[in-house]
Amino acid sequence: MKELEWVDFLKRTVKNRKDVLVGIGDDCALVKIGQEKALLKSDLFIEGVHFRLPDMSFRTIGMRAIARVLSDIAACGGTPKFIGISLGLPGYIAEKSLREIVAGVNQSAKRYMFSFVGGDTSRAPRLFLDVWALATVHKCILRSQAKVGDYIFITGTLGARNFSDTFEPRLKDSRYLAGNFKVHAMIDISDGFLVDLYRILKESGKGALLYKEHIPVTHGDADYYRGEDYELLFTVDEKEPRLRMLKKRFYCVGRIMEKRYGYKMRVGSKVRVVEPKGYMHF
Amino acid sequence: MKELEWVDFLKRTVKNRKDVLVGIGDDCALVKIGQEKALLKSDLFIEGVHFRLPDMSFRTIGMRAIARVLSDIAACGGTPKFIGISLGLPGYIAEKSLREIVAGVNQSAKRYMFSFVGGDTSRAPRLFLDVWALATVHKCILRSQAKVGDYIFITGTLGARNFSDTFEPRLKDSRYLAGNFKVHAMIDISDGFLVDLYRILKESGKGALLYKEHIPVTHGDADYYRGEDYELLFTVDEKEPRLRMLKKRFYCVGRIMEKRYGYKMRVGSKVRVVEPKGYMHF
Repeated sequence: MKELEWVDFLKRTVKNRKDVLVGIGDDCALVKIGQEKALLKSDLFIEGVHFRLPDMSFRTIGMRAIARVLSDIAACGGTPKFIGISLGLPGYIAEKSLREIVAGVNQSAKRYMFSFVGGDTSRAPRLFLDVWALATVHKCILRSQAKVGDYIFITGTLGARNFSDTFEPRLKDSRYLAGNFKVHAMIDISDGFLVDLYRILKESGKGALLYKEHIPVTHGDADYYRGEDYELLFTVDEKEPRLRMLKKRFYCVGRIMEKRYGYKMRVGSKVRVVEPKGYMHF
Repeated sequence: MKELEWVDFLKRTVKNRKDVLVGIGDDCALVKIGQEKALLKSDLFIEGVHFRLPDMSFRTIGMRAIARVLSDIAACGGTPKFIGISLGLPGYIAEKSLREIVAGVNQSAKRYMFSFVGGDTSRAPRLFLDVWALATVHKCILRSQAKVGDYIFITGTLGARNFSDTFEPRLKDSRYLAGNFKVHAMIDISDGFLVDLYRILKESGKGALLYKEHIPVTHGDADYYRGEDYELLFTVDEKEPRLRMLKKRFYCVGRIMEKRYGYKMRVGSKVRVVEPKGYMHF
């Protein structure tokens, strides 16, 4: 079962109560707790799948596992409050390494102002971290709200970030965008620009036209499919009055189209069909 | 590092904000979200550590992974609201098996009235589930509030539950106890009766005297150390007016003592020192 099919399967079979405003399928779930709205999210970070030892330091493993979740929270316009970690620990991980992972988590907690509230720990055949988070949110931005005519933006150059390092999740940009502009849909680029944009199109029931010459890349076309970029990809109402301000600060790479138009890219004078592919977890 | 030392290490190094009412060290974390109080919790369920294939059906794996978390929520007096699962999936797990796991989760969601709000899925070397949950709570019962003179109770016979089956978490008993009696401390017996009682004593800074002949067991002394019982272990104020009612319905197995008394068990006419051991995760 492919990842997108798996999500479809879950959406069909899972029944939620009315305090679940957005369930399976977006970057985060959106729920109501009393009068408050909160985002819930978890994300796996597994040795041999998402990182390799000793390519990554243990402190970076702690920080990066957290940053991946913060990036999803940013994609929804949220503010992280409480984070927990379930840790799978093989025998070959020394106590010192474990302390380094925790140091990375504590460093992130201080920087991004959340509380590390616990989790679980168990023996496991490989090192893994499952990071779960609760974030508060005023205006939750979903994948499903892109409108025909929206401008498509990305917050930074594709392929510019380093796989073996930690990174700055776009929490500030996210709050700035959600608070000041008519942003309709947003996602973080974790599985590749083209596949993550496809997710917005699918959830919104829309098509898109991209302009190849406007998409900033580091290494070339391969960057369209590169996972772990952690830039934000968002769409903005075509009548946004401060569009110029956005175009100065971020990269405008295309427009949202009717669904029947399909998913295309203008390359020079030709228009080509886009094949959404990228890093799939299956 | 032993599990109890690891928890101590985390408690020393982790700094929380003031919206965290109870952090690392109890069954669940207790946090404030707006005007509401919520419990947060995660729990790992790993092939080869917590279960073996094919001893357990896939539906039972889904149900039991959930029940373990519900048992922790019961230990704090909470009501489960939102549950997510991060799933590690090896190649040898068929699509049909995956659907069975989800069926087990959906069945539990219906029975215990929570919403399954998503999670993450990734390739992994072994099957595992990390279940995380948010529960609401009116009166949160902690491990740390046992008082000298408290009666020590358990909700059922030790060793009576089956490892390879699912089980009924004591959510109803928990709400009945928290709502109607002077319950000071509570924990679920997941790692063994003696070690879980030791956790209450340690967190409360107290000692205890147990009465061997009052502890209901199925297989004998081994049941004191047996994990995965999922009965509740709780302590009740010695001045509780309806103590008789509690003694009829549950098992009174001992008393909370001063810390300097230590941790002891009366066996016939002798009093012996208790060695807390049980299922440790390291």
